Amino acid sequence: MAMWRAPSAAGQLLGRALASTAAQTSAGSKKVVGVFYKGGEYADKNPNFVGCVDSALGIRGWLESKGHRYIVTDDKEGINCELEKHIEDAHVLITTPFHPAYITAERIKKAKNLELLLTAGVGSDHIDLPAAAAAGLTVAEITGSNTVSVAEDQLMRILLLLRNFLPGHHQIVNGEWNVAGIAHRAYDLEGKTVGTVGAGRIGRLLLQRLKPFNCNLMYHDRVKIDPELEKEIGAKYEEDLDAMLPKCDVVVINMPLTEKTRGMFNKERIAKMKKGVIIVNNARGAIMDTQAVADACASGHVAGYGGDVWFPQPAPKDHPWRYMPNHAMTPHCSGTTIDGQLRYAAGVKDMLDRYFKGEDFPAQNYIVKAGQLASQYQ
Amino acid sequence: MAMWRAPSAAGQLLGRALASTAAQTSAGSKKVVGVFYKGGEYADKNPNFVGCVDSALGIRGWLESKGHRYIVTDDKEGINCELEKHIEDAHVLITTPFHPAYITAERIKKAKNLELLLTAGVGSDHIDLPAAAAAGLTVAEITGSNTVSVAEDQLMRILLLLRNFLPGHHQIVNGEWNVAGIAHRAYDLEGKTVGTVGAGRIGRLLLQRLKPFNCNLMYHDRVKIDPELEKEIGAKYEEDLDAMLPKCDVVVINMPLTEKTRGMFNKERIAKMKKGVIIVNNARGAIMDTQAVADACASGHVAGYGGDVWFPQPAPKDHPWRYMPNHAMTPHCSGTTIDGQLRYAAGVKDMLDRYFKGEDFPAQNYIVKAGQLASQYQ
Repeated sequence: MAMWRAPSAAGQLLGRALASTAAQTSAGSKKVVGVFYKGGEYADKNPNFVGCVDSALGIRGWLESKGHRYIVTDDKEGINCELEKHIEDAHVLITTPFHPAYITAERIKKAKNLELLLTAGVGSDHIDLPAAAAAGLTVAEITGSNTVSVAEDQLMRILLLLRNFLPGHHQIVNGEWNVAGIAHRAYDLEGKTVGTVGAGRIGRLLLQRLKPFNCNLMYHDRVKIDPELEKEIGAKYEEDLDAMLPKCDVVVINMPLTEKTRGMFNKERIAKMKKGVIIVNNARGAIMDTQAVADACASGHVAGYGGDVWFPQPAPKDHPWRYMPNHAMTPHCSGTTIDGQLRYAAGVKDMLDRYFKGEDFPAQNYIVKAGQLASQYQ
Repeated sequence: MAMWRAPSAAGQLLGRALASTAAQTSAGSKKVVGVFYKGGEYADKNPNFVGCVDSALGIRGWLESKGHRYIVTDDKEGINCELEKHIEDAHVLITTPFHPAYITAERIKKAKNLELLLTAGVGSDHIDLPAAAAAGLTVAEITGSNTVSVAEDQLMRILLLLRNFLPGHHQIVNGEWNVAGIAHRAYDLEGKTVGTVGAGRIGRLLLQRLKPFNCNLMYHDRVKIDPELEKEIGAKYEEDLDAMLPKCDVVVINMPLTEKTRGMFNKERIAKMKKGVIIVNNARGAIMDTQAVADACASGHVAGYGGDVWFPQPAPKDHPWRYMPNHAMTPHCSGTTIDGQLRYAAGVKDMLDRYFKGEDFPAQNYIVKAGQLASQYQ
């Protein structure tokens, strides 16, 4: 039996034994539940728009032809939602960071047949990972499937905040024309100091794309990038985050959300940044103290905040980031371009196929395996 | 006497002789007239905001200390405007592409003392260059002063159109959340074919910045880039524009506006492009057929059009580009970032200093010299 189906000693001690779960179901047929965002009026506009609940990653025909059941929904909140109904006997749960189904310890307890949680995308913080580990579940994501998509989006947001694009665009739409209203606080990226907090897959792709802009690049991470890549990228390692922050004109957040990073950018840490700093965060909203960001934008200490991640998601109508000045916010979308969707849909299909065959996943895709959390979540 | 003050044989035949003009004025004291955009409420918000009429490039003290007169205005339209009043006895006229004073043949005829037209920025198409040449005037710009600023802006607009940023941002501002409304037509830049029409200073900077995005890069120009730089950039030369256009997912316009390029992108040429093409034009608005662009955006043939250049400028309230779908338009601002302003203000000061001393300008800054137009305008 492949490692990811075998409960570790820890898994056996702490939670249910998967072998007994498997025995309770028919050998071949699995119940797969997917939670995606609704396509609605947009579902039919693009044949490659596979990421919505309507297209359900384009794997329904394949799953059903193999005798599996496939339930998809966007209804994920509250005890009467579709997800709650179907989680009880689901074997596999596919969720995404874009419309996150929050898989709490309570839901994991309720999901008596659950074996596998797949994240269609990257970032599994919407799952209570210690609870999943304790229950002997496997959590895996489609590592790398949308890292390029996110890195591109970060560079876009850096540029549009630094260059003060949005006020100019709104002038045009509103029938106005006032170059000064844009130009008095528009800057080139060239020559600025850009620091990424975290230089994992996405951070490195961002640094590579920043290189020809002739910036002063720096990064903070637990570990140094290997010297050859560091030289190629031309970014300086900063071991001490609080020493790096005051140097940066632009700060980009590129860390997973963990218990260590939750609320890490609070009032005190934001105050350490340069007055007029631009912050881009496509990682996770909860890494920031929500009100501290809104206050710093209101005071002008932060000259612009951009990103697509919030807590919770969807963001409520009264979320302060919707209304603070100089923001470049969108719904969570940077990793769900059509190209990204096609990659993570293919990845989900590949991993389901391996699961049905009892094969291992690519090692870097595991987030929880045999009771252990991946290193970035420890 | 330096070349730029001496009328060429052609200049003497075709227009006034500069030597006689100089004789009519006091030897040292010149009247310098500048036409810039208004700073208004923004004028005092940033000490480096030198590009507005209020700060007047930050050279008033220096000019007046040397005994010159310096008149600045943003009032440039109609026969009763401030510009018309002051052009009659101005020796030097400083204009910008951002708030262009259209220097017609009539105005040149009226400007009996005029010797030098300086463009604070790049692109002197707002001046009737053949008329200026015929009149023996020198036209020069601050070549290179804001090419980086414009190239960065082009890459920003490519990204935000391809990735469908604006609809997502407007959802947030309007209290909405609909990932599908963004994701059904959002794409990565990676893997797309990007062609620049024109690979001069700005086009090359754009191609260099595009390189790490792993696109298929191509360019059309009158001349091939030298092989070493072409290899470094990794862009393929396309001699035939109409053969290149159907291959491109993204087309960027990087040509000066001349009699050859005016209206060059008409209905027929746009129809040759791929359905769903993104067009970015920070060159000049009049290179496009205005209505053809609006129609192609309305039909969906063009999936996005972005840029900051219009004809005329300021764009009237009823300009169709303000209201067409999927645009990323702003007022003309990409070359007037604070960094750009500081560079072109320094360039103007340097060139005025050379003018007062009777010295030549850097060769690449001349647009009209001794009756001849620079090669890009021929």
